Amino acid sequence: MELTILGCHSATPRPNARPSSQVLELRGHLFLIDCGEGSQMALRNANVKFSRIKHIFISHLHGDHFYGLPGLISTFQLLGRETELHIYGPKGIKEAILLLLKLGNAWTAFPLIFHELTSEESEILLDDEKVSVQTIPLKHRVYTNGFIFREKIGDRQLNLDAIYNYGIETCDYQNIKNGKNITLPHGEVIANELLSFDPIEPQSYAYCSDTIYFEELASEIKGVRTIYHESTFLQQHTELAEKTMHSTALQAALTAKNAGAEVLIIGHYSSRYSDKNLFLKEAQTVFKNTLLSEDGKRIKF
Amino acid sequence: MELTILGCHSATPRPNARPSSQVLELRGHLFLIDCGEGSQMALRNANVKFSRIKHIFISHLHGDHFYGLPGLISTFQLLGRETELHIYGPKGIKEAILLLLKLGNAWTAFPLIFHELTSEESEILLDDEKVSVQTIPLKHRVYTNGFIFREKIGDRQLNLDAIYNYGIETCDYQNIKNGKNITLPHGEVIANELLSFDPIEPQSYAYCSDTIYFEELASEIKGVRTIYHESTFLQQHTELAEKTMHSTALQAALTAKNAGAEVLIIGHYSSRYSDKNLFLKEAQTVFKNTLLSEDGKRIKF
Repeated sequence: MELTILGCHSATPRPNARPSSQVLELRGHLFLIDCGEGSQMALRNANVKFSRIKHIFISHLHGDHFYGLPGLISTFQLLGRETELHIYGPKGIKEAILLLLKLGNAWTAFPLIFHELTSEESEILLDDEKVSVQTIPLKHRVYTNGFIFREKIGDRQLNLDAIYNYGIETCDYQNIKNGKNITLPHGEVIANELLSFDPIEPQSYAYCSDTIYFEELASEIKGVRTIYHESTFLQQHTELAEKTMHSTALQAALTAKNAGAEVLIIGHYSSRYSDKNLFLKEAQTVFKNTLLSEDGKRIKF
Repeated sequence: MELTILGCHSATPRPNARPSSQVLELRGHLFLIDCGEGSQMALRNANVKFSRIKHIFISHLHGDHFYGLPGLISTFQLLGRETELHIYGPKGIKEAILLLLKLGNAWTAFPLIFHELTSEESEILLDDEKVSVQTIPLKHRVYTNGFIFREKIGDRQLNLDAIYNYGIETCDYQNIKNGKNITLPHGEVIANELLSFDPIEPQSYAYCSDTIYFEELASEIKGVRTIYHESTFLQQHTELAEKTMHSTALQAALTAKNAGAEVLIIGHYSSRYSDKNLFLKEAQTVFKNTLLSEDGKRIKF
């Protein structure tokens, strides 16, 4: 799993302060999460092969999470894209995008498939043999979802030393990976656990932006290994966070702690603070393993 | 008159290749002309005090001329703008902007006034005591206008030496500027031309983007002193220019020559050419006083 932060700042795009957008690479998928203005330039800056993006997840329809999407779709069209593109976002996203394409007389030649979200409950958006994606209902000034990306549990891992010692043929390798016991030619049955190790623990990632702090969020994302949580404000501006329905760094850390996460990544910083380390320090008083997101930063798991 | 090129590239925004947008400063007005994605970042990069922009002119509704507008309006709102903003552009622009604001529950607190254009004939958009702005009907794949910005002829200029020699009082200065003759206390009438010089020749600027070449355009912009004309292609790709309804550098130069312009600025370059000087060389074979536009370039007149 590799996460590329394209932009991690709130409100207005500024030079060196891009609005929200991330790319998550997971088991061959390249997921785009939010798409503020200028995200396509950030994709180019980060050398992401963005023709590989087939699924775009938009948390909510504020400009700093969404206004880069029409341009990205136009660019896909200009680059001759043929493969289908799935867009998941709040109801209304389809009308907006189609209106802009119509006004420019710029219909896409590739299939553009909208999955409009209205549910207040978590729902599965994508579920294939390798990954699943589900929504996290958030509480913001407009209808907003976060997203949980989960890798599925993989095959058991071959214990090659043991396999060699028992003289097992290559054609049985997949059976071993699938957890089966193996019967040797002379009839002896070798238990699978002698021939394999447990599968690698699957990765999981929760994207939580934008939201006011609420206790139940931690239960919604319980057990997810890596959490991105917005921290627009510091604790000294809790009232402002409540008023604008955003979170503080401390609240992000509290959610990560209560969810039992391994890693917390914070971002969506308000421009009122010139030193981002203040966010880090505040979050780390509650959750030590916190990372600051930065535009262009790559994080591998 | 000062022109700031915010972006001058066609099609997809790329790092160091911003889509179309310009700021024209003329007699106290700050006009924004087109607004491709990322234009608000370019405004900040160019240190333009963009709260001063009160009139935005959009030539057509292709993304590379328009997709930066919703974000700029949102930014005006976030910065607490109170003064009205006039937006001139093709019919449909109001529906698109209002839909995006509605979806984000982000209505502006300042008056947002749309002037939707549908006419195939040139029309006056703005006419005050200092400047006028009118449309130039262009021929592109969608309904498109260019714009002519004209400074009005100013006051006559005081000939301070002569005024001093005749002992004329300060209270008559505005009369002299207005072209009136002055009667001295002993009855002698001094002709205005002895007391003043002709007004400075007014500036004028025509913005022509995007359009296929057509001969009548030169008559539409006859006598305009500075012309910006798109040159997406070089002459070797004339067929492509015709097919996509764009112009070549040579065609831009031909229009400038036939219009009797003093200066031609070219831009809206296709990304297929790595050397912009090829555009300059081609245009200069027909119109010597050609300038290349570049992102961030300031041109004073």
